[in-house]
Amino acid sequence: MASSAPIGVFDSGVGGLTVAREIMRQIPNETIVYFGDTARVPYGSKSKKTIINYSRQIVRFLQSNDVKAIVIACNTASAFALETIITEVSIPVIGVVKPGAKVAAETTKNGNIGIIGTEGTINSGIYNTYLSKTKPNVRVYGKACPLFVPLVEEGWLDDPITVEVAKRYISELMTYDIDTLVLGCTHYPLIRHTIGSIVGEKVTLVNPAFETARSLREVLIHNGLESVTAAGEHKFYVSDGAEKFKKFAKTILPIEVIEPKDINIESFADTLFN
Amino acid sequence: MASSAPIGVFDSGVGGLTVAREIMRQIPNETIVYFGDTARVPYGSKSKKTIINYSRQIVRFLQSNDVKAIVIACNTASAFALETIITEVSIPVIGVVKPGAKVAAETTKNGNIGIIGTEGTINSGIYNTYLSKTKPNVRVYGKACPLFVPLVEEGWLDDPITVEVAKRYISELMTYDIDTLVLGCTHYPLIRHTIGSIVGEKVTLVNPAFETARSLREVLIHNGLESVTAAGEHKFYVSDGAEKFKKFAKTILPIEVIEPKDINIESFADTLFN
Repeated sequence: MASSAPIGVFDSGVGGLTVAREIMRQIPNETIVYFGDTARVPYGSKSKKTIINYSRQIVRFLQSNDVKAIVIACNTASAFALETIITEVSIPVIGVVKPGAKVAAETTKNGNIGIIGTEGTINSGIYNTYLSKTKPNVRVYGKACPLFVPLVEEGWLDDPITVEVAKRYISELMTYDIDTLVLGCTHYPLIRHTIGSIVGEKVTLVNPAFETARSLREVLIHNGLESVTAAGEHKFYVSDGAEKFKKFAKTILPIEVIEPKDINIESFADTLFN
Repeated sequence: MASSAPIGVFDSGVGGLTVAREIMRQIPNETIVYFGDTARVPYGSKSKKTIINYSRQIVRFLQSNDVKAIVIACNTASAFALETIITEVSIPVIGVVKPGAKVAAETTKNGNIGIIGTEGTINSGIYNTYLSKTKPNVRVYGKACPLFVPLVEEGWLDDPITVEVAKRYISELMTYDIDTLVLGCTHYPLIRHTIGSIVGEKVTLVNPAFETARSLREVLIHNGLESVTAAGEHKFYVSDGAEKFKKFAKTILPIEVIEPKDINIESFADTLFN
């Protein structure tokens, strides 16, 4: 695999762009092929079986673009599909959960960590699993926040309604004296000000995107895959609504998103009855 | 086609159960095969092309169950896919938009009609099209309410946050002196009390489900397809999360939903690149 090959990054929709942004910042020589599954968003309420099925299709699509590594820039897909995907492809694959858990473990002082994410991510207990390996004596409190993704997609970022919803979701976590809160869904950094205003200054917000980009860089170096030339043109693909995606991407990314393309992701199913 | 054959009813998720409920009430001899596309919900933010693709797969699945007629119990799919589906199958197919528009035209006294629905339904202008044919001199005001479906799916039906969201969406419509408001999404009857409390008693809420069941009955009689024996066991299928669907269905339907089944709806694609 050539070190000039692109990195495949995928998410259920626009949230993964917060991870793509960090990759562009930290390892600017890398070229990204991004896929947002906008036809089937959200992932957070769906079953493990379905998320594995969707992730496999996307990985096949990304591999058809000759990517040298894959970043699952979605907590739900990282929670449900990372282990399976790793065993099925020969290129490096990283998710956002392990990097997020690592920073949370390093950040907490009193050992009380809150995790907010989708139903899928929270119910999987995946942050708990990673955290208990990294730092066995921490206490992890999870809370699913199913309305955050639709609120972000609606564009109500700094909004009194989003504040009310956030208060309801987060107030329970605050009773556990948490000092660290993981934004366990790649959409959530887009409402970090709202979340921050509720938890206050004593709680540190952890955004796994930063650490994910750092992990990616390490993995590329370790595998001799780091790009040594300037990045080519980043490419963006979606399963629906390319124009809408373009508008949203513009507000997140430091670059112009040129012509995102609409593809039929279902055509990347391996069999009709998998 | 035997008159004892079942009716196929489909929706993006649980919303279409409000239509199934009306069918059970009004034509209790009919047996229903229900499909909820819970893996790909919501439909409201997706493109026409994608909704036609999904609807075709579902119609193929329902036809594999030998249904004698199909009800598209979803406003977005009715808006985008009904015309296409009608030309592709030989059994009767009805949507929820035309029946809803008919009642709205009959209900309004001052000619000012509000429509609330998904982005897809509202932007399609479909209620406008039907209403201007039925009653040319009415004025139709549409408003997309993208957060209503996630709020219903979260179960926040009578809730201060839902009231706040509804106020924001609906207040604009109230400035047009509407006397009739169409609940143009099959999820919305589940928050009709909240919506009703905002618009007040002077505005009549129209739920297309009732009129859709009545239209279905007429179509069956017209085609000699009305069941003359007692209904068999209603069957329920979903593309994901059968257990979660069962719990929700319990709160909507007057019957026990016995073992909803999880199927791979993508396997009903006609070609890999349609």
